[in-house]
Amino acid sequence: MSLWLNKLSASVPAGLKQPADTARFELDQAGLIADLKENPSMGDAYRIEQTADGAFTLFGGQTGLLYGAYRLITATLCGEQLPLPYASAPKYALRMINCWDNMDGSVERGYAGQSLFFEDGRVMYSPERMRTLGRLLASAGLNVLCINNVNVHEPAQRLLEDYLPDLAALADLFRPFGVRLMVSVDFSRPMCHGIPTADPLDQAVRAWWKETAARVYAAVPDLAGFLVKADSEGRPGPFTYGRNHADGANMLAEALKPYGGYAVWRCFVYNCRQDWRDTKTDRPKAAWEHYAYLDGSFADNVILQVKHGPFDFQVREPLSPLLLGMKKTKLAMELQLAQEYTGHQIDLYTMIPMWKELFGELPADNIMSVAAVSNLGNDENYTGHPLAAVNLFTYGLLAWDPAVDPAEAVTRWARLTYAFPPKQEQTLVSLLLKTRRVYEKYTAPLGIGWMVTPHDHYGPNPSGYEYDLWGTYHKANRDAVGIDRTHAGTGYLDQYPEEIRIRYENPETCPDLYLLFFHRLPYTFRMKDGRTLIQRIYDDHFEGLEETRAMAAALSGLPFPEPDASVIRGRMDRQLYNAREWCDIINTFFFRLSGIQDEKGRTIYE
Amino acid sequence: MSLWLNKLSASVPAGLKQPADTARFELDQAGLIADLKENPSMGDAYRIEQTADGAFTLFGGQTGLLYGAYRLITATLCGEQLPLPYASAPKYALRMINCWDNMDGSVERGYAGQSLFFEDGRVMYSPERMRTLGRLLASAGLNVLCINNVNVHEPAQRLLEDYLPDLAALADLFRPFGVRLMVSVDFSRPMCHGIPTADPLDQAVRAWWKETAARVYAAVPDLAGFLVKADSEGRPGPFTYGRNHADGANMLAEALKPYGGYAVWRCFVYNCRQDWRDTKTDRPKAAWEHYAYLDGSFADNVILQVKHGPFDFQVREPLSPLLLGMKKTKLAMELQLAQEYTGHQIDLYTMIPMWKELFGELPADNIMSVAAVSNLGNDENYTGHPLAAVNLFTYGLLAWDPAVDPAEAVTRWARLTYAFPPKQEQTLVSLLLKTRRVYEKYTAPLGIGWMVTPHDHYGPNPSGYEYDLWGTYHKANRDAVGIDRTHAGTGYLDQYPEEIRIRYENPETCPDLYLLFFHRLPYTFRMKDGRTLIQRIYDDHFEGLEETRAMAAALSGLPFPEPDASVIRGRMDRQLYNAREWCDIINTFFFRLSGIQDEKGRTIYE
Repeated sequence: MSLWLNKLSASVPAGLKQPADTARFELDQAGLIADLKENPSMGDAYRIEQTADGAFTLFGGQTGLLYGAYRLITATLCGEQLPLPYASAPKYALRMINCWDNMDGSVERGYAGQSLFFEDGRVMYSPERMRTLGRLLASAGLNVLCINNVNVHEPAQRLLEDYLPDLAALADLFRPFGVRLMVSVDFSRPMCHGIPTADPLDQAVRAWWKETAARVYAAVPDLAGFLVKADSEGRPGPFTYGRNHADGANMLAEALKPYGGYAVWRCFVYNCRQDWRDTKTDRPKAAWEHYAYLDGSFADNVILQVKHGPFDFQVREPLSPLLLGMKKTKLAMELQLAQEYTGHQIDLYTMIPMWKELFGELPADNIMSVAAVSNLGNDENYTGHPLAAVNLFTYGLLAWDPAVDPAEAVTRWARLTYAFPPKQEQTLVSLLLKTRRVYEKYTAPLGIGWMVTPHDHYGPNPSGYEYDLWGTYHKANRDAVGIDRTHAGTGYLDQYPEEIRIRYENPETCPDLYLLFFHRLPYTFRMKDGRTLIQRIYDDHFEGLEETRAMAAALSGLPFPEPDASVIRGRMDRQLYNAREWCDIINTFFFRLSGIQDEKGRTIYE
Repeated sequence: MSLWLNKLSASVPAGLKQPADTARFELDQAGLIADLKENPSMGDAYRIEQTADGAFTLFGGQTGLLYGAYRLITATLCGEQLPLPYASAPKYALRMINCWDNMDGSVERGYAGQSLFFEDGRVMYSPERMRTLGRLLASAGLNVLCINNVNVHEPAQRLLEDYLPDLAALADLFRPFGVRLMVSVDFSRPMCHGIPTADPLDQAVRAWWKETAARVYAAVPDLAGFLVKADSEGRPGPFTYGRNHADGANMLAEALKPYGGYAVWRCFVYNCRQDWRDTKTDRPKAAWEHYAYLDGSFADNVILQVKHGPFDFQVREPLSPLLLGMKKTKLAMELQLAQEYTGHQIDLYTMIPMWKELFGELPADNIMSVAAVSNLGNDENYTGHPLAAVNLFTYGLLAWDPAVDPAEAVTRWARLTYAFPPKQEQTLVSLLLKTRRVYEKYTAPLGIGWMVTPHDHYGPNPSGYEYDLWGTYHKANRDAVGIDRTHAGTGYLDQYPEEIRIRYENPETCPDLYLLFFHRLPYTFRMKDGRTLIQRIYDDHFEGLEETRAMAAALSGLPFPEPDASVIRGRMDRQLYNAREWCDIINTFFFRLSGIQDEKGRTIYE
């Protein structure tokens, strides 16, 4: 199995204590002669210099030395000349991975096997795999790992209680890689300890959380903090007590404050019992309504973690207005490496082109942190699909420096992992960079999202969520499709700054790929290029299928080693099946509704 | 909890040996003085006479005495005057219940709790509940109980192996009630015993089944036989070896023959991996294609068990052509008490009106047996919904005498169970008799079926199966809906006798309620009463919802005892929700497609 630093060694030995030890070990392995000069004040930042005799000197904090070492190693392995002296510092202090691992060993929305951390209700792992994971994370620049699901199922609450020694042991394993652990907590937990409420303004509750934080930090002094999903999809939260989310988050922040910990508070709050007949409620508006008015009232060690779009990790969503609007609050943008709606690590879907678009919309310094839902599992290759590892690696690069060039990031990963000859490397890189657009073409059209198999979220089901409780409707009928989210419609667009609102408000200026996110349009609507909406839908779907076939042909010509080659081939066969189902089902769905033939006479089934 | 013989006693004591002992016990309990005169040649038949002093004499075989005793008791409890002498014999020799119980304790398509027979991979039951169940079955005239799922999951194969003593003990418990057990078997089982094949023509395979039958009948001499689901939905079968189903069934029949056992062979064979694009394949045609040509080639102790309709227990299906066509084969008609597609024992659905229609279509003596998928479970009331017990009871009456009057059968059950005052009894009976039509009105229209939530089969999802692999499509588009199954269409109708074919072939003569089963029609099609098809769909749905509301009101006025009252009220609330969802979703679905307004201006959501 190929991983991006396997060329150094397939594993990292036990016994390393500090990040600088790891830096030392990795540089030695790579045959690089380098002096390490620790400068604690530099933290994650580093500077690489070269002495006259060709040896390197690295300056940095403990973690900075490690990041510098990996940069030097990856540059060397890639044959890249770093302009020396070379200095770098991360844009975001917290570069987080959120694992949705349950203690029964399952991974919610996991497509790479079972949990790396848990089995049968216990903390169970391979120390060697933890060290390999530590290396993967550190070499990508990632530094926070939340190990358990935000939906805190029994007995994961006990990670802060009788399983705390296990948590501490795991933290010890990741410390040499500069990776700090984080834990998802259950807001209602005080009630399991003799307190009749979880009201965040209740003194006994506050005292319980302070005592808990003290106990936890005594065991894991560098824990990054607590992650919380509250009042969301059935989770407990402050609403039960008539409190708002600032009350809830600030209570946890108060408990974590003495230890430098963060209360990371997810903003994924919406009505998940919506009546489909209700056209007043529009789910994308929910987060803004719950949080925007609280801007400025959060403690300074609260981070609001906001999904990148207002729905839930669809192929294309506009940037969440919360990420643009809350100027007096620390924000993290939440991405999702797990391919929940984007192909389950069966279909190829390289995310960095999408992420670049998102960061492109985001004013500098609007967020202070990034988080990504993990695509990891205990499959031998960690990410299920060998090529899904590109998302983990490039996420790290982007979290360090959002200005990174996508082609350069993907190339670095490809070269480290496979070291193909240049022409084949270029084939692989350009193919990977195309995958997102191809996937988008054959799935739900033009920003509409959600036409997936309910619950599972793989494969097409155009009306699967149409009459359900989740607030995700397209209301396609014989004439038109989409939800009007302009001022004249649900008013969602009013949550945006003027400049963005104006761009999206008018279907004539709204980018095509967002058209059906913001507008309800007849099938005969004329797009900017003169095609009708329905013809554009047909064209995209036939093209998406054709491009998938072309990708399959291109991939089959690349010299992947085993076992990667077999896994890639097997999954591509499934992607081909899936792409054909999507193409034919979406086209048939819209043909049955509209009765309009494809202008090019291609086969649309009745 | 009210059960129809609870007025006698809530349970039956241990220690009874033969059906006549049970007859004796039950008559004594009921305070009826009766002589029992056993006449083995009478079998299940009985005759009741009255002597000059008012005492009764019962003549019958062992089981006949028991059935006669229950008839006398129920008549007495109901205040019914039996015309004496009163003689009765069952129309069908085997009156079967098929339980779909798994050994892990779950019940496939079970809506009354967990299994009554199994738990955690073992045979586990309450002997007292078994005796109560025996009484329920015998008093309804039922005499065969297949205890395990036709999908034979591990470790249910071991019922014929190391769990055989458990099977024998259970058979002992049911013997005093004249109930013989049956077991679902795994066609591939020889392969777990060192034989490299399950080919029914292989001598080692045949020997294995003979040896198995000998062993099983040594432990359970009155076992009714083996039930088999072969080559169906992933089950193993003769097709694997290039053999047909006569080869498979006859092999089992040969093994069972020396012991008087039956090989009951289900005919539920179809392509469950159909491509939705394929319009040539039509699932209802499958059973005929697999079996009709084999008529006359089955051994005389083979029974082909055929579902009543060509699909799978939808609210309305025409009678399966197999049940009309195979004159030289023993047939059983399979019904389903479990409300898989008919409301999950939440919604009220009394089945006898449907069954009467089916028997009305069936020429006399075309079938020799009836079977029904069980609606039983370990809920205190055995059937989940207290009123679902009417289906178990009346199924028994119908299996004994298909000429039974539905109102009379339902009244008998109601009076035995609740003994309401006459007016309220009449309200309950007439309400129960209406439930099927009401349910039919608010669900998929006019024979189309299948618009249910996939897999779960409760609640509406108009396109849930539309692009799936199950062969159950309606292909609704902006103009028309339904599949043309006439000679000009898929040709399914060609499988029927001329008289029936002619009736259904022409949409002008086809009964309205079957219209969309056999025909593809535009929404503007004029029905016999002048309404358009679309208006009929809207009307039925609004009526179905209104009638459900009226039923809820009527039910709430009836003096059910607790706990029945609470359960009935709670489930009716859920039915009201479900009926409203169905009504609005189906109407919206067709309105979005057709764009045609309701003529009466009622609310259809966009």
